[in-house]
Amino acid sequence: MSPPLAPDATIGILGGGQLGRMLALAAAKLGLKCHVMSPDPQAPAFDVVHRVTRADYSDTEALDRFTGDVDVITYEFENIPAETATFLAARKPVLPNPRILATTQDRLLEKTFVNDLGIPTARFAEVDGPEELKAALEAVGRPGVLKTRRFGYDGKGQVMIRNGVDPQAAWEEIGGQPAILEAFVPFEREVSVIAARNAAGQVECFDVTENEHRDHILKISRVPAAISDEVADAARRMTAVIADAFDYVGVLGVEMFVVADGGGHTLLVNEIAPRVHNSGHWTLDGASVSQFEQHIRAVAGWPLAKPVRLGAIEMTNLIGNEALHFGDWLTVPGASVHLYGKAAVRDGRKMGHVTRIL
Amino acid sequence: MSPPLAPDATIGILGGGQLGRMLALAAAKLGLKCHVMSPDPQAPAFDVVHRVTRADYSDTEALDRFTGDVDVITYEFENIPAETATFLAARKPVLPNPRILATTQDRLLEKTFVNDLGIPTARFAEVDGPEELKAALEAVGRPGVLKTRRFGYDGKGQVMIRNGVDPQAAWEEIGGQPAILEAFVPFEREVSVIAARNAAGQVECFDVTENEHRDHILKISRVPAAISDEVADAARRMTAVIADAFDYVGVLGVEMFVVADGGGHTLLVNEIAPRVHNSGHWTLDGASVSQFEQHIRAVAGWPLAKPVRLGAIEMTNLIGNEALHFGDWLTVPGASVHLYGKAAVRDGRKMGHVTRIL
Repeated sequence: MSPPLAPDATIGILGGGQLGRMLALAAAKLGLKCHVMSPDPQAPAFDVVHRVTRADYSDTEALDRFTGDVDVITYEFENIPAETATFLAARKPVLPNPRILATTQDRLLEKTFVNDLGIPTARFAEVDGPEELKAALEAVGRPGVLKTRRFGYDGKGQVMIRNGVDPQAAWEEIGGQPAILEAFVPFEREVSVIAARNAAGQVECFDVTENEHRDHILKISRVPAAISDEVADAARRMTAVIADAFDYVGVLGVEMFVVADGGGHTLLVNEIAPRVHNSGHWTLDGASVSQFEQHIRAVAGWPLAKPVRLGAIEMTNLIGNEALHFGDWLTVPGASVHLYGKAAVRDGRKMGHVTRIL
Repeated sequence: MSPPLAPDATIGILGGGQLGRMLALAAAKLGLKCHVMSPDPQAPAFDVVHRVTRADYSDTEALDRFTGDVDVITYEFENIPAETATFLAARKPVLPNPRILATTQDRLLEKTFVNDLGIPTARFAEVDGPEELKAALEAVGRPGVLKTRRFGYDGKGQVMIRNGVDPQAAWEEIGGQPAILEAFVPFEREVSVIAARNAAGQVECFDVTENEHRDHILKISRVPAAISDEVADAARRMTAVIADAFDYVGVLGVEMFVVADGGGHTLLVNEIAPRVHNSGHWTLDGASVSQFEQHIRAVAGWPLAKPVRLGAIEMTNLIGNEALHFGDWLTVPGASVHLYGKAAVRDGRKMGHVTRIL
């Protein structure tokens, strides 16, 4: 356990998107400096920090300069190349510990890890070729969802296999990569828990968030989720168990399905995001502390705050062209508009979000 | 009236202290870029913006580069040299209009301006020398407060004249500068109103704040102020009248004394700050929109938000060494800690603040 950072210390952030930007803004509130590294010359986070490194994550000379300038390193995305993580961790503390990424970058390892903690997921089977896919379909049943083990996000790298779909075609559609077949879950709703854990083992969960996706991209989050207190408590407990098992330091998001089960409900963990998470953006306006500040506190070795929610909240992502109409939101009572300063509008690109306290 | 700024526009900020820093953070939330100009090489605002100009405000070459890079200019402090303001205003819109500064930089002009609007202040008289001071003491009475007309802040440039104090000595103590003598006001409490006004004439006031000073520096602000709704309404109305009279664009703070008057209360305007104001820092955590965001919206030509207060709030400044104990505040329930990233702790220096929703 490193000593707590002094308020004039510098946090290095790998990745310069909106998550890195909002982490940097949270660090600035606490008097901390940030140095952002990103290969994107127009990375939105570059605009709000005191120093930037524009370089590829494989550029060891740049990584060396970066590590020399910072006191601790964190990241905004989970697909950090293993060699980069190893290089950095040999020089400065990297939090959360990048060995967690080996698990969360791989759907097979992630789901196995979760099940080994006694926490249920959808049924799944490993798939390494079209023949195995056929066997997996026998075991898991149809409809099933074939997902690449690595590098999938926002619905990329996955295909639904209903009755009549040819396994061979599905295998080719995901590019013939190592995959898993998951049972399709007829969920009642999707929820997530954003939790922070620090090196002292303190865990603080935000209230459970209910999420609505469109075209596989998060569109709306609502808090509190329309679930019973018992289910909400169970969701938070599962998240804390996962955070403890990873010896996690920082904020993580755990996505879950709520499935009707007789008279009650079951929770199935769907995905773990080892970083601040889109479904936690509401905490910027709707809680006494934001997920970004909690992450910075954890990474800095500071105590976490106990989050208090300020009301019923709805968060809406501004995706692609929707951001051009941000002006409509400026006058909505109780709405708080966040724009990420991205240079170009593209279809499906997250350009900003709006939080409303209802 | 300029057209509204696009979200990728750049706002120039004169001054790089904590106010400039918090303005820049508010602009970043809205996707806007900031360029800060300050002669201080360690200006706290430099750490959170995409471009900085380290130069004296009289450096016309630097001012020229600065104006060339920005779409609109605002400022965090009221003592901008008149030549600088003229130079900038000839090249880019400067908001609030710097001609307001001629009034607010001079206590005599400021109080005359306020009285001319039908709004009361403490009794005062112009003082240009020791003989006039004697005459002023006859007219205004003792105790009186002798204040330099210009460049006073945090109690600097003022002296109390009680019975027995020699006018000549008081005159010398303030450096023999043009001054005013103000009647000492036996106030019940000090309050302030933070208001935003945009170019379309929309005015939005935050709830009246009650302020407690120590050693002439703001120590604690509490919202709501312990005054009747009628007095609070009157305070907001006075502030709106002042903002309208200036054709003001941006946020301003108006400090007032609440004086017992028979069974009721009278408000006397004490000072106008043509900028975001320390007594409005609570809005960062305690309102649906902050004073900094309102200022940026006004300067950007965007509509203002209607502020909603989130509870009873107390804001405490961390002054000098107090900031070294910021850790004590991190675990106080409902407390939100803000540190300004200042390199050196000095006596009387505002290093940060804490807001608590009670």
